[in-house]
Amino acid sequence: MGLTYQMKMKIPFDMADMNGHIKLPDVILLSLQVSGMQSIELGVSDKDMLERYNLVWIITDYAIDVVRLPRFAEEITIETEALTYNRLFCYRRFTLYDEAGQEIIRMVATFVLMDRDSRKVHAVEPEIVAPYQSEFDKKLIRGPKYANLEDPISKDYHVRFYDLDMNGHVNNSKYLDWIFEVMGADFLTKYIPKKINLKYVKEVRPGGMIASAYELKGLESKHEIISDGEINAQAMITWQEIEGN
Amino acid sequence: MGLTYQMKMKIPFDMADMNGHIKLPDVILLSLQVSGMQSIELGVSDKDMLERYNLVWIITDYAIDVVRLPRFAEEITIETEALTYNRLFCYRRFTLYDEAGQEIIRMVATFVLMDRDSRKVHAVEPEIVAPYQSEFDKKLIRGPKYANLEDPISKDYHVRFYDLDMNGHVNNSKYLDWIFEVMGADFLTKYIPKKINLKYVKEVRPGGMIASAYELKGLESKHEIISDGEINAQAMITWQEIEGN
Repeated sequence: MGLTYQMKMKIPFDMADMNGHIKLPDVILLSLQVSGMQSIELGVSDKDMLERYNLVWIITDYAIDVVRLPRFAEEITIETEALTYNRLFCYRRFTLYDEAGQEIIRMVATFVLMDRDSRKVHAVEPEIVAPYQSEFDKKLIRGPKYANLEDPISKDYHVRFYDLDMNGHVNNSKYLDWIFEVMGADFLTKYIPKKINLKYVKEVRPGGMIASAYELKGLESKHEIISDGEINAQAMITWQEIEGN
Repeated sequence: MGLTYQMKMKIPFDMADMNGHIKLPDVILLSLQVSGMQSIELGVSDKDMLERYNLVWIITDYAIDVVRLPRFAEEITIETEALTYNRLFCYRRFTLYDEAGQEIIRMVATFVLMDRDSRKVHAVEPEIVAPYQSEFDKKLIRGPKYANLEDPISKDYHVRFYDLDMNGHVNNSKYLDWIFEVMGADFLTKYIPKKINLKYVKEVRPGGMIASAYELKGLESKHEIISDGEINAQAMITWQEIEGN
C-alpha cells in the first residue's frame, strides 16, 4: 500500500456545468493538484524531479469510473495513492468521496517518466518512487483495445493559447474537453459518463487544429483526437442517463 | 470600510500559461470564489440570495490593474472588500498580494442585483448588503467611453458547453478568454495586460458563435465581443512587455 494523501474541498460555482455537476476535465485538474501536493509534501515535487533528474511525469492512460458526479457547493474529498510501479509505469489511484464517505468517482492513471530533453521514456528508478511507499509489481495494467473509427462524426477545434501549459504542451484535461464537447449540449444535458478509458498516443502540437471524432452506438461511444493526420488520443466511454431525467 | 476577506493559495500548474504566469481569466474565477466564500461566511451566500430574494449578483464592469502576474507555484493572497454601494451598484475590490505583501493585481468589479425571473436589475436593499459593512455612497464609478471599432481584426469562436455555468450563462471569465485568445500566441508570449477595462453589455446566448474583434495601436487595444449582430462586451487594454523579453 502506498501512502495516501487527501484534499477536502467544495465544488466552486465555476466548475459546475449546466446540470450543476462538476465538469469532468476539472476532476482531472483537481486530482493532479492533489498528487502534486503529495509530491511536494514528500520532497519530490515536479520541480525537484526536473532539477535533480531532468525528468517530467507524463500520463499515458486514464481509467475512470463514475458512480455520480458531485454537484456545485458539495463537499468532496479527493484521495490519491501511488499503487504500484514496474520498470516503466507507475499506477496511481484517485478516489473522490462525498461527505458521507461514499466513493463517487475512481480513476486510475498510468504515469511514465520522460526525459525533458530527449523526450524519451525513462525507467522508473526505485529511488524516485520510494517516498510514495508504493510497491514494485511486475504486472502491467493493460487498457482496452481501441478499434479505429469507421464512420465518425467529427468537428474541428483550434488549439488555443490557454490550452497550453508552461511547457507549451496541451493540458491533459483538454483532450477530455474536446471529447465531451463534440457530443453536443443536448446529449450532455441528458447523459454523463459511467466509464471512461482514455489513452494519450501522441502530443497535440500547439497552434494548429485538432479534430474530435466519435461514433455513438447505444450508450457506448468511441473517440479519437486527430491532428496532422495522426491519432493523438483515443477513448471509449460508456454513458449513463442523468438521474431525474 | 467594508469587511475584508482573504484566501491564501499557491498557483497550481494548470493555471499557468506558456509564460509561467497565471491565466488572467483564472484570476477572475479565483476572485469570485473568494467573494463567494465571504458571502457564505456572512450568511448571504448566492444560494441564500436566490432562496430569500430570488436575486442573483451580476458583474457589469471590471477595472483591472496589473503590476505583474503571479507565477506557477508562487504563493499569493487574494483579498476582497465590498467598498461602497448606491441605489443600483455595489463596488467590490479584489487585491492580489505576493508573499512579500506587495500588491500585484488590483481589480474593482461593479455588481448589480438581478431578479432571476424578470431578468431586470433590482435596487440594492441596505438589508442585503449590511453584512458586508460597506458604506452607502451616492457617487457612481464610471468606466471609460468605449468607442466603436473602425477596422477590426476578428475571429469567430464557438460557445462551448463547458463555457456555460449552471444557469446556462456564459461564465464571466470566458469573455476575457476570447479577448486574449484573438491576440494570438506570438503577442501573448511577449505582452501581458497592464490595465484592463471590461464592460458586459448583453449576455452571450448559449449554443451559437461569437466574434472576438480587436484593434491594436501601439500598446493599446480595443475589443468587442459580438454575436447576432449585437455587442456583448467591450474592453480596452493597455499592454506591457513581459520582463526579461
